[in-house]
Amino acid sequence: MSRDQQGRRRERRVVGGLKQLPWRHYRNVYKPIEVLRPEQLEKIHEASLKILEEIGIEFLDAEALSILKAAGAKIESGSQRVRFDRGLVLESIAKVPREVMLHARNPEHNLTFGGNHVNFGSVASAPNVSDMDRGRRPGNFQDYCELLKLVQTYNIVQFTGGYPVEPADRPPATRHLDAHLAAITLTDKLWHPYSLGKHRISDAVEMICIARGIGKEQLKREPSLFSIVNSNSPLRLDGPMLQGLMEMARHGQPVVLTPFTLSGAMAPVTIAGALAQQNAEALAGITMIQLVAPGVPCMYGGFTSNVDMKSGAPAFGTPEYARAAMAGGQLARRYGFPYRSSNACAANAVDAQAAYESEMSIWGAVMGGVNMMLHGAGWMEGGLVASFEKFILDVEMLQMMGEFLQPLEVTDDTLGLEAMTDVGPGGHFFGTAHTMARYETAFYSPILSDWRNYESWRLAGAQTAEQRANAIWKQALAEFQPPPLDPAITEALEAFVAKRKEEGGVPT
Amino acid sequence: MSRDQQGRRRERRVVGGLKQLPWRHYRNVYKPIEVLRPEQLEKIHEASLKILEEIGIEFLDAEALSILKAAGAKIESGSQRVRFDRGLVLESIAKVPREVMLHARNPEHNLTFGGNHVNFGSVASAPNVSDMDRGRRPGNFQDYCELLKLVQTYNIVQFTGGYPVEPADRPPATRHLDAHLAAITLTDKLWHPYSLGKHRISDAVEMICIARGIGKEQLKREPSLFSIVNSNSPLRLDGPMLQGLMEMARHGQPVVLTPFTLSGAMAPVTIAGALAQQNAEALAGITMIQLVAPGVPCMYGGFTSNVDMKSGAPAFGTPEYARAAMAGGQLARRYGFPYRSSNACAANAVDAQAAYESEMSIWGAVMGGVNMMLHGAGWMEGGLVASFEKFILDVEMLQMMGEFLQPLEVTDDTLGLEAMTDVGPGGHFFGTAHTMARYETAFYSPILSDWRNYESWRLAGAQTAEQRANAIWKQALAEFQPPPLDPAITEALEAFVAKRKEEGGVPT
Repeated sequence: MSRDQQGRRRERRVVGGLKQLPWRHYRNVYKPIEVLRPEQLEKIHEASLKILEEIGIEFLDAEALSILKAAGAKIESGSQRVRFDRGLVLESIAKVPREVMLHARNPEHNLTFGGNHVNFGSVASAPNVSDMDRGRRPGNFQDYCELLKLVQTYNIVQFTGGYPVEPADRPPATRHLDAHLAAITLTDKLWHPYSLGKHRISDAVEMICIARGIGKEQLKREPSLFSIVNSNSPLRLDGPMLQGLMEMARHGQPVVLTPFTLSGAMAPVTIAGALAQQNAEALAGITMIQLVAPGVPCMYGGFTSNVDMKSGAPAFGTPEYARAAMAGGQLARRYGFPYRSSNACAANAVDAQAAYESEMSIWGAVMGGVNMMLHGAGWMEGGLVASFEKFILDVEMLQMMGEFLQPLEVTDDTLGLEAMTDVGPGGHFFGTAHTMARYETAFYSPILSDWRNYESWRLAGAQTAEQRANAIWKQALAEFQPPPLDPAITEALEAFVAKRKEEGGVPT
Repeated sequence: MSRDQQGRRRERRVVGGLKQLPWRHYRNVYKPIEVLRPEQLEKIHEASLKILEEIGIEFLDAEALSILKAAGAKIESGSQRVRFDRGLVLESIAKVPREVMLHARNPEHNLTFGGNHVNFGSVASAPNVSDMDRGRRPGNFQDYCELLKLVQTYNIVQFTGGYPVEPADRPPATRHLDAHLAAITLTDKLWHPYSLGKHRISDAVEMICIARGIGKEQLKREPSLFSIVNSNSPLRLDGPMLQGLMEMARHGQPVVLTPFTLSGAMAPVTIAGALAQQNAEALAGITMIQLVAPGVPCMYGGFTSNVDMKSGAPAFGTPEYARAAMAGGQLARRYGFPYRSSNACAANAVDAQAAYESEMSIWGAVMGGVNMMLHGAGWMEGGLVASFEKFILDVEMLQMMGEFLQPLEVTDDTLGLEAMTDVGPGGHFFGTAHTMARYETAFYSPILSDWRNYESWRLAGAQTAEQRANAIWKQALAEFQPPPLDPAITEALEAFVAKRKEEGGVPT
C-alpha cells in the first residue's frame, strides 16, 4: 500500500504557480467507523424490507410499472404503489457489481468506485453562484465554465459533479448539450448527465462516445457516465428520473440511487427511521435498475440529514448528519454496493461554520467508507450556492483528508535513531542530514492555511482564509489551460450539438 | 450505554438565556481509528526502548538522578544522561492504573480518565489573549478570570486547563496563589497547578484540601489535581518540572507526561521518528514518577506535530498532526495509560482555517481514543493566544463531537414505520404524531451555527460565525453567577493566600 515517501512526494505537480498535491488514487486503509452495532444494522435492514413489503414505493412511470409487474412486484390495479417481496429485492440487488471503474476521456483520470477507493468530486446542481468580487447571483454558463476550469485545475477534485452550477441562461431543451460540450472540452475528468428523461441521457451517451472515440458496446464494457437519482422522498420515484435511470441502465452506465431523506421533513424525525426509509428507497431504485439490466453497475447514496425543527430549514454537517453518513456506509457495505456521500454545509458565509460543518461531513463520509464524495468542493447554503471561495477552502480540506489517508511509514530509516543519537538531549534537528534529505517533501504543504506568526500575518494585511481563497481561485483561472483534445473530436462534438439544437433538443 | 433519547434531552440545562448541552460524562463507544498496523506499533515501541537504552534521557535534577541511580538506571559519573534497561521501564510503567477519577470540589464535576471516557478541557497557558472588542493583548488577571467564567458556564468544557491565559500582571512568586484561588471560587470544576518546582504544587495541594475540606491522605485516595509536564524535547527533563513531578507523585496526584515533539525541529522530520521520541520521553518520565510513588496515577500525552519547513513555524491540525494523535492513542492503549491530546490550530483569525485545523485536531484526538482533551476551547496561534471568540467556536465544535458520540437508537419506536405508513409516498412528516412527540428534542441544537436562509441571514446583518461568537461570550459573561461555595472555605482560602504572600510566595 505504502509507497516511498520521497518518491511519492516527488510527484507533486505544479500547475502554473499553484502548489497542490499530485493526481493520485486514494484508498482508505483504515477501518470505517461503525456507528451501528451489528444487530442495529440488521434491524434497519429488516425495517426497510418491511417498508418495501407493506408500505410500498410509488413509481410514477408506466414503463417502470410494467417491468416491475412482470418481475412479480405487487401493484394494485390502477395504483402506482409497488410492494416488493423481499426475495425479489434481495435477488436483484445481489447482482450489483462490488466495484465499477469509470473511464474518463483522459484514461489517467479513470476512477474506481467500491472497495476502499475514495474519490472526491466537485459541487453539483447549485442554482446560484457566489464569489467575493461579483456577489451572489443566479447560475449561468460563464460561471459554469469557470467552475469546470477549477475542477480541471485541482487534482484533488477528481470528477465533476453534474453541473457545478446550473447554466440557467441557456435554454432548457438544449442546455445539457452546451453543458456536456463544456465538460468534455474544459476538463478531461469524469462528468455526469442528469436523469431528467431519456433523451438527455442518450445525448450524453452519444457525446461521450464521440469524445472517447468508441462505440456504445465498448461504452457498456467501459462505462464513462454516472447519474444521480434523488428519489422523491418519501417513498416515490417520478417519471423523468425513472426514464433517465432506465436509459442509463440500458447503456450500462451506473446510477447512484441517493434518497434525500431529511429527518423531520421528508423522513421520520429519528435518524433510525430516516435511515430505514433511505435504505428502502435506495433498494427499490436499485432493484428497478437491476430488473432493466441485470448486473449493471450502480451505487448506493446516503443523504440523510435533519431539519431545524424550529424553522424547518435543512441542516448539514450536523452530528446527526455525520452519524447518518457512517451508518449509510455500513448499509452499503452490507450489500456490497459502492457508497456515495457528500461534503455538505448550511453556512451562508465562507467562515468557521462553513469549515466545521464541512469537516463533520467530510469525516462522516470518509470514515463512513465513502467511495464517491459528491459536492466535495464548492457547496454552500445547503446546496443553493456554488461558491468560488468555498471551492478553494474545500480543496484544502480535501487535500488534508487525502494526506491523512496516506499510511505512516515506520522503517528504520524513518524512525531516525541515528539522527537522535547525533542531536542528543537538548539539541534540534533543523540541520541534520536526516532532516536535510527530507525537508522539502516531508510534510503536507497547504494551499490556503497561513502559518506565519501573528505579527507577520498582520503586517501582510491580516487576511482571513476567505480573502486568501479569493486570490487563489483568481490565479487558478488566470493560469488555466484547457486539456488537450484532438481537434477532429472537438469538431465532431460541435457538429453533434449543432444538429441536436436544430432538432430542437429534448422535450421540456 | 444508550439512554432514552427524550429522557436524555430533557436534561438539557439552560444557564440564563444561553442554550447548551447538559452536563454529561462522555464515552466513545466507537472503535478508535488505528493508523499504525500492529507491527508498526511494535516497531515504535521497540525503537523507543532502544532510545532509552542506548541514547538516554537527560534529567537535570540531582534528586531525580539519585532516585534513578538507586533503581538501577545507568548514569555515567558526572553526567546527567540516564540510560534505562527495558526491564526497569516495563516494570515501572506496568504499575500505572488504567483509570483515574479526579475529584472536583463539586462532586458532580468529577471526571474519570482512562478506558473510553472522553473529557474536554479549556485552553491552557496562552501568553496572550484576544477578542474582537479589545484586540490582542498580553495575558492578565482580569482576562484569566473572564475565561474561567466561560469554563464554568459551558458544560462541554469539563475542566480548566491550567491557566487559560497567563495572568502575567500578577507577581511570579505569588501568581499561582491568585490563580488557584480564582479557579476554586469562579469554577467548581477540575483545575491544575503547574509543575514549576516543588512549592507551587504543595501550595495547590493545601488549597484543594481546604476547598474540599479534606486532608492529604484523603487527597491521595481521591486525587483532585493534575499537572502537565512537557519534556524539553529532545530527550531532556529540566529541574523545575522534575521537582514538580516528584511533588505531585508524592501527594498521589497524576502528572500528564506530554513530550512536545515538533517533527522537523525538536524531533526527527518523520512522524515515525517523532512518535518514537515522544514515546521514549513519556516512558522515561512515567518511569521516574513510578519510582517516586509506585502505582500513582499518571497519563500519557501526545503532542506530535510538524513545523513548516520553509519558515520553521509550528503547524497544528495538519494531516500529520491528526495521524500522530491517533498513533499516540495506540501507544497509550498499548501500555494501558489514560491518553491526553489537544484541540490545536495555528490560525491567526477565528476563520475557516481555525475551524478546519481544530476539527482535524478534534477528530484526531477523539477517534484516537483521547481521555483528556486539553486546549479544547479557546486555543489559537499555536498556543500563543487564548481567544474569546475561538472559545465559543470550540464550544460548538466540542458539543457537536459530544453529540456525535451519542449512540444511535434503533428501536421499533425510533424506526417509525407507523409514521411512514400514515404519511405515505409523497407526503411529509412535519405534523405527524411521531414528529410532534419528539420535535423539540430530536436534534442537536447549535449555539453558534446560523441555519437561516441567505436572505434572512443577510437582512439580519450577514454576521460571520466570529461575529456571532462575540455576542455569545459577552452574554455568557453578563449572566455569569459564581458557583456556590461555603463562605468559611472562601475565608480559609483567602487566609492561606494572604499568609503565603506574606511569606513571599515561591522562590523564583
